[in-house]
Formats: sequence, structure tokens, C-alpha cells
Amino acid sequence: MDVIEVESFLAGQWFAPGPDARPVESAVTGETIARVGCPRIDCGTMLDYAKEVGGPKLRSMTFHDRARMLKALALYLNDHRQPLYDLSFSTGATRKDHLIDIDGGIGATFVFASKGRREMPDAHVYLDGPVERLSRGGSFLGRHIAMPRRGVALHINAFNFPVWGMLEKLAPTLLAGMPAIIKPATSSAYVAELAFRQILDSGLLPEGAIQLISGGIGDLLDFLDGQDIISFTGSADTALKLKATHAILEGAVPFIAEQDSLNAAVLGADAAPEEPEFGLFIKEATREMTVKAGQKCTAMRRLIVPATRMQAVIESLSERLGAVRVGDPTDERTQMGALISKSHRSDVLERADMIATEAERICGDPMKFSVRGADRSKGAFLPPMLFHCADPDAASTVHATEAFGPVATVMGYRDTAHAAVLANRGNGSLVASVFTRCGDIARELALETASYHGRLYFNNRDSATESTGHGSPLPHMVHGGPGRAGGGEEQGGIRGVAHYMQRTAIQGSPDILTAVGGVWVPGSLEAKGRGHPFRRRFGNLDIGETIHTAKREITIEDINHFAEFTGDRFYAHLDEEAAAANPFFPGRVAHGYLLLSFAAGLFVEPSPGPVLANTGLDSLRFMQPVSPGDRIAAQLTVKQKTIRNDDYGEVRWHVTLTNQNGDVCAEYELLTMVAR
Amino acid sequence: MDVIEVESFLAGQWFAPGPDARPVESAVTGETIARVGCPRIDCGTMLDYAKEVGGPKLRSMTFHDRARMLKALALYLNDHRQPLYDLSFSTGATRKDHLIDIDGGIGATFVFASKGRREMPDAHVYLDGPVERLSRGGSFLGRHIAMPRRGVALHINAFNFPVWGMLEKLAPTLLAGMPAIIKPATSSAYVAELAFRQILDSGLLPEGAIQLISGGIGDLLDFLDGQDIISFTGSADTALKLKATHAILEGAVPFIAEQDSLNAAVLGADAAPEEPEFGLFIKEATREMTVKAGQKCTAMRRLIVPATRMQAVIESLSERLGAVRVGDPTDERTQMGALISKSHRSDVLERADMIATEAERICGDPMKFSVRGADRSKGAFLPPMLFHCADPDAASTVHATEAFGPVATVMGYRDTAHAAVLANRGNGSLVASVFTRCGDIARELALETASYHGRLYFNNRDSATESTGHGSPLPHMVHGGPGRAGGGEEQGGIRGVAHYMQRTAIQGSPDILTAVGGVWVPGSLEAKGRGHPFRRRFGNLDIGETIHTAKREITIEDINHFAEFTGDRFYAHLDEEAAAANPFFPGRVAHGYLLLSFAAGLFVEPSPGPVLANTGLDSLRFMQPVSPGDRIAAQLTVKQKTIRNDDYGEVRWHVTLTNQNGDVCAEYELLTMVAR
Repeated sequence: MDVIEVESFLAGQWFAPGPDARPVESAVTGETIARVGCPRIDCGTMLDYAKEVGGPKLRSMTFHDRARMLKALALYLNDHRQPLYDLSFSTGATRKDHLIDIDGGIGATFVFASKGRREMPDAHVYLDGPVERLSRGGSFLGRHIAMPRRGVALHINAFNFPVWGMLEKLAPTLLAGMPAIIKPATSSAYVAELAFRQILDSGLLPEGAIQLISGGIGDLLDFLDGQDIISFTGSADTALKLKATHAILEGAVPFIAEQDSLNAAVLGADAAPEEPEFGLFIKEATREMTVKAGQKCTAMRRLIVPATRMQAVIESLSERLGAVRVGDPTDERTQMGALISKSHRSDVLERADMIATEAERICGDPMKFSVRGADRSKGAFLPPMLFHCADPDAASTVHATEAFGPVATVMGYRDTAHAAVLANRGNGSLVASVFTRCGDIARELALETASYHGRLYFNNRDSATESTGHGSPLPHMVHGGPGRAGGGEEQGGIRGVAHYMQRTAIQGSPDILTAVGGVWVPGSLEAKGRGHPFRRRFGNLDIGETIHTAKREITIEDINHFAEFTGDRFYAHLDEEAAAANPFFPGRVAHGYLLLSFAAGLFVEPSPGPVLANTGLDSLRFMQPVSPGDRIAAQLTVKQKTIRNDDYGEVRWHVTLTNQNGDVCAEYELLTMVAR
Repeated sequence: MDVIEVESFLAGQWFAPGPDARPVESAVTGETIARVGCPRIDCGTMLDYAKEVGGPKLRSMTFHDRARMLKALALYLNDHRQPLYDLSFSTGATRKDHLIDIDGGIGATFVFASKGRREMPDAHVYLDGPVERLSRGGSFLGRHIAMPRRGVALHINAFNFPVWGMLEKLAPTLLAGMPAIIKPATSSAYVAELAFRQILDSGLLPEGAIQLISGGIGDLLDFLDGQDIISFTGSADTALKLKATHAILEGAVPFIAEQDSLNAAVLGADAAPEEPEFGLFIKEATREMTVKAGQKCTAMRRLIVPATRMQAVIESLSERLGAVRVGDPTDERTQMGALISKSHRSDVLERADMIATEAERICGDPMKFSVRGADRSKGAFLPPMLFHCADPDAASTVHATEAFGPVATVMGYRDTAHAAVLANRGNGSLVASVFTRCGDIARELALETASYHGRLYFNNRDSATESTGHGSPLPHMVHGGPGRAGGGEEQGGIRGVAHYMQRTAIQGSPDILTAVGGVWVPGSLEAKGRGHPFRRRFGNLDIGETIHTAKREITIEDINHFAEFTGDRFYAHLDEEAAAANPFFPGRVAHGYLLLSFAAGLFVEPSPGPVLANTGLDSLRFMQPVSPGDRIAAQLTVKQKTIRNDDYGEVRWHVTLTNQNGDVCAEYELLTMVAR
């Protein structure tokens, strides 16, 4: 196999590694398979390319445009997985590991594409939260918007998931509308480079949207400012060095860090060995220790089990772990491949030795284990190693030392409160899991531990079949954790996109807020309508366009009849005396649904036209009771428009029902599908 | 007047300043009025007091408990304003300035109290966003919660607003459930200490909730970790020093910084001198330069006006500024008091000299101006000083030098795009304002500048009467800005509370999510009901309690009748052929409101009972059309309970309408008020 010359893509051009590039060894054979190193970095040119070319092009697209681009990209990558699989074996990863890295990365891109369409507007301005009433009369209001940062997102990725690590950051960055510079870890840069090349080759991204630095980043950090952002995954030591850079601190460059984490897994006190939860715990612990040879920032490192169940756990786990087949990752039967490199293997062993000062090794002898189909002396192989810490309260190293390999420590707890204390001893982690079916145990642990962990994962017999596992960050859920884990936060759906945007408070008159946000704000001028808006197609409706219906009197007969017809004979509608005794009503009042129904009768256009269906209703509030003899009218205004497909779009109407005195009786938002 | 010995309140005890305390001078007379300095700080004891005493007590309260506590505190402080007013004159502040500091701080506390009740649950767990469906079958779900951080919030405050600066941080901190250590700025610490004493004397806060360090913080930062948080307001230099602390970086201690800001104010191209917006601009610019003698982090520093209007702006502003009465702050006629100290006055003059290298001084001679009712040589007085920068594109100092006093620079722009470029030259600011009535100008400036500014304030004739002003951060709106402004964010309602909480992703079965969040999640087990829930009082209803109604057939006669009765003769309900041509319907279908009305008829209890009223409805979605002959049934489940007052509470019901095949036809949330 030829040595791969891993290239960099800077300011629109590919650059081969220079003479001082670093050799990268195969995790399996130890042979040099790639050379990684960027010849020279012209930081100014790179940033200009991102900010002057990529940024404007991305910002000219709407959130939906960018979401569609991501979907197309995910589909493209899905069709190009095989070369990535083939190449990834050299990192020591098995076929199952590839699913996490490659399919997982593509899956995350799909989810961001889908959330972008469903949860963000088809517009350039993202509205964050409702309008805030800042004045009594309503002439001065506030609301929050978010806009893409004007700089570049620098992604510094870890070696363990070269594809997922790239895509899980790139998808929210592009969705936000920011260009990215990606710096993969050297030891798996050859996989990241191939994935990057595929993204580029897809032709789906605008020019300037992405760049790749294979090798060192030079003095790039000194060029960043408050419009840029760094998203880092890696060791705490490296993070500390980077975020202490003067330019980063002085420029208040946001720095999202995912770093060391001593993730805990708690076996609930209810999970006796004969219960399904006990088996689930053993199974997941085994998987967490062996997937990616334990080189996973979310892997279980500390297994916290009832002291009374220690023996059963140790026996069961040892048996499982002892049977794990280690060896050639290309062999389908292999359960655990190699670590990324022999030097990383030495680091893991060094850390295991530190853990051994406080815990006894139960299984996994690094000097004595079988490797199938590969040369143990040439590849970076290790067996799964389980330690037992007999006094976890007195211990400190087991709570603080992350051996980034197939290593975990089991420790006993007395009661649930003690389990929480031990889980929190990690001093901030990415994820903790709890195997329990007991709601009280789940709640106690959540209340006592949530502030120390970015994610709490519960599993039991009810969720087991569909559960995605302790170690899998999902694009829907935040990934990151406080303290030792770096204090960062990624993903979590639109929360993860928001990092790449600046939130800005907007204050002004209703008209100004409507103009800025592109969504009608109550109190704004009504746009001049051109006939009944229900007769006009989606594309012809203007934001703010309003109709005022005729008035309709609500008679006592209407109320009686409605009660009879629907069966809703609530006393407040039928019994004057009882209704008057109710704190909310002056006497008999109309049914709320009678009002909604009559309102529809006032504004609906009966004949076929562009309005296809009423699909829903939001935020209905009854504000003033309607008594017999009151006359109500409705006012409908086009609040927001969202294209849904080639045929139709969603129109959100703001509806106000008023009585003959002009008092607002009810307000709501009505959703209709309207033909384009 | 006796010299005030400004004390510290550490771990529950008051400490007088030590022998090496610093003297603080009166801004007006220059005499020493206070001594500030903490004798010794035992950081371990302070943190233990906060974490072991204050934290648990605060966390044992619900969000509503803490909101009620804040309301009581605001009412208490409102009754104790006079001594704060009396003392604050010595800081150079006028009576109008007191309203911003003292009344403003109390007002912010009221808003957080109110938002806590309205926007947070009466519970210990804050739910952040909706349930995420992570599996096809729905047995594994996700959602996000937020819980108070387990450490202490260290508030490092600026000198300019000793009361507002304390309360705007304290209110969200306490609402979140975190204890605080407050470190006021030395030069106005005597005012902050009095306000702190009032808070303590109110007896409303639990023990351990607050501490006060009057003086240096010693090595406190070295004791903090990822469960703590620092909220800093002050200069960029100080912020840089603090956030570069190794312990802060290593422990990933969140650091919220509000620092330097060269806030811009743009006069829109539409705002000709004869338009009201021109006058508003001149008036607000004058106010921004003179309120608190310009010592306001949000004050306008750069006035960006159409080049063609430069002469008119300069003339109008100079006239206004020249008439500003400077002097004794206790005199009601005084428009601008003194700066905080003579040394600060020297700093301001030094910075004004830097600005003068790129701009010409138009008005305000610091060597030649009148001071009424006070001795100019003894107090820290300055006149308002306006500069004109003729070439703002070439200039750099005017965009980067914050003279924290009554100093501003006016500069001309060619077109709106140029105005945006100049506004953004501040490289990150707290607020920029725009005086325009033109929606297009507002939108263009918002799109081009929002990512550089934490807040965009628009004003014009429509909002002028009720507008709260460019310089006023409001508790509803985020306060902070990117880049030079520090990259921090405070306030913004619950957004500002969230900083003091850790967001955690929760994954598990529906039952586990219900147990953890305290709010019923669809798919959870139904709690066993004890009779019809509409017959039971608020306190007797259990989360998850469910009723299943009988089925009711929807007949063609029902649909015809409903159309006739309500007037809603939409063709999809009445014309089989036209309905079938609609992409959403198989043929004639029932009205959505008919379904809602019949559903109410199925579950409503007619006789007087604990259910008082249906107050609203949320998130209604019609999912499957209902055809004549279909039989629908409703299922109601108690989703969430919130006490509203002594008499009743709000019950949020999850409602599902299904047809005879078990397909879900509609889902919504119903709000009722139920007697306690």
C-alpha cells in the first residue's frame, strides 16, 4: 500500500504535505501509511477566503436553503461510504465502529437538515423567543433574534471519530450560515481528508464554506476575534493551552471544549442480578469498554454498583470481557480492534498503572492476551481491562484519570445518595447512566447529579430495545459537560446551531420589529389587502395582510343549542346562578369552542381555493368571557409564511376575537396550508 | 461626616476593614468618606458556607418559592430607598441617576420575580424545550432539563451602578437557586454595602445565600471549579487578568464578562432635521453623554450620522450640550453631576486626548467650564465633550478607545451600508441604536450589524413616548455583547437565569422522563384515577391521571348541521367531490372545531365542581381527517400542575382524539383552572 500524502485545502487550493510532515502508522500493522503536515499556512488569506467568499455566500441562503444543502450532502455521503469504510480499518476500527463514525456522522447531518426545516424559519433571521412587552401601551416592544457570526468556525477534532467528529460540528455550523476551517487530528487525518474530499467533490457547498488543515495550525489563533468561534474536542491539556492564548482571551473568542470525562454508570439498587436491568448493565458496560477499543470520550470509565452486588457484577463482567475477541478489525468476528497507535497504547497503559495504585486489576492482562489475525507486537492492541476499587471514597485517581482505552473501574456504593456522590466525584462529565426501572431512584439521581453531567442516560427493560446506548451522543441532545469535561456544549438540535450565531436583543416599535424579523408583530400596521386573503395563493400573501370580519351576535339560543348538540352542558353555559358564582364568569357565558366555530364561520371562504386545510392552532387564550347578546368579530392577519413543499406552504395567522366594545375575548394562532 | 467603615459579610459574619484599607473620596468634595478593605479572606470557609448552607437551602425551594422571595425583597427595598438615595450623592450621581441605579435595580428584581412565576415551573426541575422522539416506537425519548449549579456565583461589579449592578445579577442567581458572593467596586462600595445590608436585614433570604467582599478577593479564584460561575462587569484589562487565571481556565469556570464597548448610534438617512427622529436623536445623544456623567457601559460613544447632515447635527448637539448644567448632584436643577473620582477623571481626559489625535473637539473644554454649587477643583467634574472625526474609515482610535465619561465622537457616513460598517468597527458592543422610521433601513442595519452587537435599539416617533432609551439594559432583554464587549450575556429573562444552571440532556423511557421532570410525557403509564378527575380538587390530582371517554359517531347530519349552525361551509365538509380533490382529505370530513366541541361534550362534567374554567389551548394539531361514520373518543391526562393563587391552580391536560381504529386524529393541550 502506498503511503498516503494527506493534503490540506487552504483558501480554495489543495496543498501536499511538506518535507517535515509527520509519518502516521497503521494501528494494525504499525507500518507507515500516511504523511501529514501542512507546508505553510497563510492565515490572513485563509480567513479572508472564509470571511469574504464563504460567509457572504452562506448568509445569502435562508436557513431552509442551508438545511436542504445538508440533506443533499448527507445523501451524497451515504452513497460514498465504502471508500471510507475501507480506509478506516487502518485506524484499528472494526466494521461496527465504522457505523458509529461514518454512518453516525451522516445520520447527524440528516437530523440537522431535518431540524433546520422543521424548527428554523425559511428566512435569514432566526427569532429567539416571543415578543416582550416593554411598555404599557405597546408602542415599544422587544424580541431576540440570532444571526450568523461574521467570522469563521475553527473545528479542532479528535482522532477517534474522524468522520462523525467532522460532520457533527460542520452540520450545525453550515446550518447557522458560518464557514468552517477543519483541523483533524493527525493520527487519523487520512480518513478525515477523504471525507472532506467527498464533501468538496459533492459540489453542494458554496465556495469558501470549508477549508482543511492537515497538520499544525501555525499562529492561526492569533488572527481570530469575537466573530469567530473555536470548537475543540480532545485532551484537557491541549484545550488549556489553546484557550489560554492571549488573542483568544482578549478577543473573547468563544471556545467550546469537549475534553476529559470520567463517565459513570450506576446500577440501580432495584436491579438485582435476576432483573433484566442487571443484564443490560453488564451488556452495555462490555460494549462501552470495547467499542472503538474504549477510545470514546463518552465511554463508561467508572461502574458504580451496589456494594452488595459487587461480586455478581465482577463475575458477570469478567466472564463477558474475557470472551471478547481482539484482533484484525477487518474480520467480522472481531469484537475489538486496535488502538489508534502504539504511542497511544503506551499512554493508556501508563494511566492504567495510575489507576492500579488505587484499584486491583480484575481482568485483562496487557502482557498476556490473544490477538487474532494480526501481529500483537506490531499493532496497538490491548485487552479490555477491568479494575476494582475497594474504597472509592478515599480514592482520587480513579475519579480523575481517564485512560482513553478499554479500561474501566468498578466500585461499590451503600445507598442511592452515595452513588450520586461517587458519580459527581468525576467533577464534571459528558454522560452518566443509570440502569433502573424505579422512578424514585431515577428522580433522586437526576436531582443530585444533573448539574455535574451534560447528559443522563437511563435504561431499563422498557427502553432497552430502542435505546441508542450510553455512549452515543445524538444530534437532538446536547453533548458536552461542565468542569473536567470542558464546560462546552454541542449539538442539542438548534441549541447547537445557536453557538454559531450571535443572539441580539431588538427593541423598537411593532412596525420596526416586523420589518426586522419578517414575522408580523401585533400592533404593527395592517398591510393593505387585495381582496379576501383566502382567495389568494401562498406567494401572493403579504406579511401583515389583514381581514376584519362582520360581527355576529351570540344568542342565548346559540348557547343552549350548542350545549345540546355537542353534549357540553357545563353549568357556566346553562345555569345563570351557578355561573355567576364562578370567579371567572359574570353569569352564563358562551362555550369557548362555540366562539372558535363561529369565528371560522365568519372568515372561512366556502368555495375551493388556495386554502387547503386548517392543520392546527397554537396559543389560544380566552381573555374575556362572552355573554349572551355580545357581538363578536374576528380579525385575521398573516403572521408568518413557511414553504413546506413544491405544492403548498404553511401560513400562520394571528387571530383576535373582539366583542362589541372592542375588548379582546380570545387570541390564537391559526395554521393553514395554502397552495403555492 | 464620619468616615464610613465599609464592612464585609463573610460566612455569616460582618468584618470591619483592616488597617490597610483604602480610603475612598467623595466625588463631589474630594474628602475621604469611606474606608474599604477586607481584613482577611478565608476562602475555604466562605465557599463552604455558600455550598453547604446557602446552596441546599435555596435548592430546597421551588422556582416559584424563589420568585416569591424576590418579589418580597423588591417590595422591601422599595420601602428603603431613601437612605440609598441620600448616600449615593457622594458618588457624584444626581437624583435622576439614582432612579436608574436604585429604582432600576429594584425594578429588575420585580421583573425576575414575575418571570419566575410566569415562565418557570413551581418545581425543582426546569424543563428546557420539548420531548425529543429518539426512537420509532417511542419507548426511548429525550428531553433537556436545567438544575442549579452546585457551586457559588461570584459577582464582580462595576463602580457606576452599585445597586442595579448588584441586583441585576443577584436576582437571576437566586431565582436559579445558587448562592452568591458579591464583590462591589471599591470606589462606590459604601453604597453597595448599604444595599447589601438592607437585603440581609430584610430577613427574606435563607442563610448562606449571600456574602459580600468589600475589598480584594485574595486568592478566591483558585478555589473555584466548574460548578461555580463568575459574572464580571468592568474593564477589559481586569477581565483579561481574571479569566486568564489558571484555575479558572483549567476548571472551565464559566466567566460572563461585560466590558468595554464603543456603542454606536446611527441617525437614519430618512431622519432629516425637520423630522421628529432627528430631534429624538439629539435628545437621546445628549442624555447618553450626561447621565451618570457618561459613566455607563451602554452610553453612546460614536454618533454615526449622514455626512450631509453633519453640520446640522453638530450645531444642534453643541447647543444642547453647551446648556447642560454641571455641578452639585443634590441640586434638582443639576443635569450632570461628578465623575466617581479625580483619578477616574484623569483617565477620561487621557482617553479624550487619544481620541483627539483622530478627531477635533467641537465642544466641552475641560479647562474652562462652570460648576454650579460645588468646588470644581475639589470634585471630579467634567463638561460634556463632543469630538468630530472627519475620516472615520481611516481612524482607529475613535473606534477602540472608550473614554468612560461624558465623551462622544460624531462621524459621517455615505449610505446605510457604510453606516453599518462604521457601527461594526467597534468590534463588538453592548448596544447600537438606530433612529429611523423606515422599515427597510431598520432591516438592512439589523441584518448587517446584529452579529456585532448584543442589543439593537430602534427609536422613532411611534415608540418615542414609551421607549426606555438606548442606554437602559432591561431585565427582559439580553445585556452583553461579542468581542470587545466581552462575549458575555446577562439578563434576557430566563436566559439570564439559565447561566446559573446546568443544562442536562435526559434520555430514557417515557416513565423515567415523567419521573425525572415531574411533567407527564406521552407514552408513560397512566396513573390510576379515583373517579372523574373533573370532580377532584387541584391538590388531589396526580400527574399522569387519565380518563378515557366513551366513543361518539360523527354523522353526515352532524357535519351538515355544524356547517349550517356556525356558517363554516368550507367545501371540504360539504362537497364530496371537491373534498376528494383536496390533497389532505379522502372526501367530506368533519370540521376540526366540531371534533373539539364533541370531545368537550364527551369529557366535561356538567355540574359545579372544582374545574372552574377552560382558559386556553396549546399546540393543537389535526393529524388524521375524520370522515362521516367515524367514531371518536378522547383521552385526557393530567400533564402539569401549577399553583396560580390561594384559590386555584392551572392544570394542563394532554388530550388525544382517536378514531375507531385507534388512529390519532388530533392532539392538543388543554388548560383549565381548578380550585385548590
